[in-house]
Amino acid sequence: MPRMTHTIREKHKLLGRVRRLRGQVEAIERALESEAGCEQVMHLIAGARGALAGLMAEVVEDHVRTHLVDAEKHPGALNAEAAEHLLDVVRTYLK
Amino acid sequence: MPRMTHTIREKHKLLGRVRRLRGQVEAIERALESEAGCEQVMHLIAGARGALAGLMAEVVEDHVRTHLVDAEKHPGALNAEAAEHLLDVVRTYLK
Amino acid sequence: MPRMTHTIREKHKLLGRVRRLRGQVEAIERALESEAGCEQVMHLIAGARGALAGLMAEVVEDHVRTHLVDAEKHPGALNAEAAEHLLDVVRTYLK
Amino acid sequence: MPRMTHTIREKHKLLGRVRRLRGQVEAIERALESEAGCEQVMHLIAGARGALAGLMAEVVEDHVRTHLVDAEKHPGALNAEAAEHLLDVVRTYLK
Repeated sequence: MPRMTHTIREKHKLLGRVRRLRGQVEAIERALESEAGCEQVMHLIAGARGALAGLMAEVVEDHVRTHLVDAEKHPGALNAEAAEHLLDVVRTYLK
Repeated sequence: MPRMTHTIREKHKLLGRVRRLRGQVEAIERALESEAGCEQVMHLIAGARGALAGLMAEVVEDHVRTHLVDAEKHPGALNAEAAEHLLDVVRTYLK
Repeated sequence: MPRMTHTIREKHKLLGRVRRLRGQVEAIERALESEAGCEQVMHLIAGARGALAGLMAEVVEDHVRTHLVDAEKHPGALNAEAAEHLLDVVRTYLK
Repeated sequence: MPRMTHTIREKHKLLGRVRRLRGQVEAIERALESEAGCEQVMHLIAGARGALAGLMAEVVEDHVRTHLVDAEKHPGALNAEAAEHLLDVVRTYLK
């Protein structure tokens, strides 16, 4: 069952990403509690924003590759090149 | 030939958008030439950015609806609901 | 000491924001663990992105209003209208 | 009059940027007119978006450096380091 294997690997990657993001949000909280400077807080928020964008890009990629077309019912129907062009745009805007 | 009709209507809409955008960029140029205040220039740039985002959203929508799946070869293969969820995300990020 | 009062009120508001954001990130984590659909995960991520942008906008506002000029040494030096125009731009781009 | 010299040099740089941007918008228009592929149009729009963001970053920088504080009335009042931290954030979000 290759589909399931893919999903489990993908799930692990996404969970790793969201846990790192949680750590980054907790670091923002600690910085605010300890009255760190605005610069440090802004820097931490910018980092969390990058992590969140990376997470979204990966979920969107997964969504495009596995949900836009049911590959079992319609094998080969998804135009891989057109999907790749779309994901290029998504990544540009999520940066 | 409904596909062609769609493309021509779509092309007219997109051309209308890009021409309005050109007008907005020319207004930024005139504002800079006449030494308008930073506030006005920033306001005009923010407007052009919205217009450009709207143009991209429409091209991406067109791309998802007509190019990800060749509807003649694979009728019904594109999951319309999944495509709509994807476009919701794209619109959120393009705003 | 009005400055300190301001800082403490501001700190409470920011801590409230970052704690809500942490809750939203934890909801993404739970959604991934329970294998919720991509749509739900994308929706939760878009919500967290809005919360993070709101947090950044507030920290930037605080930074512009209190750190660009030392109001004790240079009272009245910050052009309030120009600062407001800048913050309008920042809010537009953070949305 | 160093202030004026700065303004004229800055104006030339900004006009150069906006004229290149106009050229990019015209290229999008021609691509749509000649029925270029979605991929090419999306690529051109992404390029114009980068150019527009660069223009906004430069105008914001100019605004922060010259308008937040009237340097003739309040010399030395703008905290240069705090302004730099702010501009770092602006550039991150405008990318």
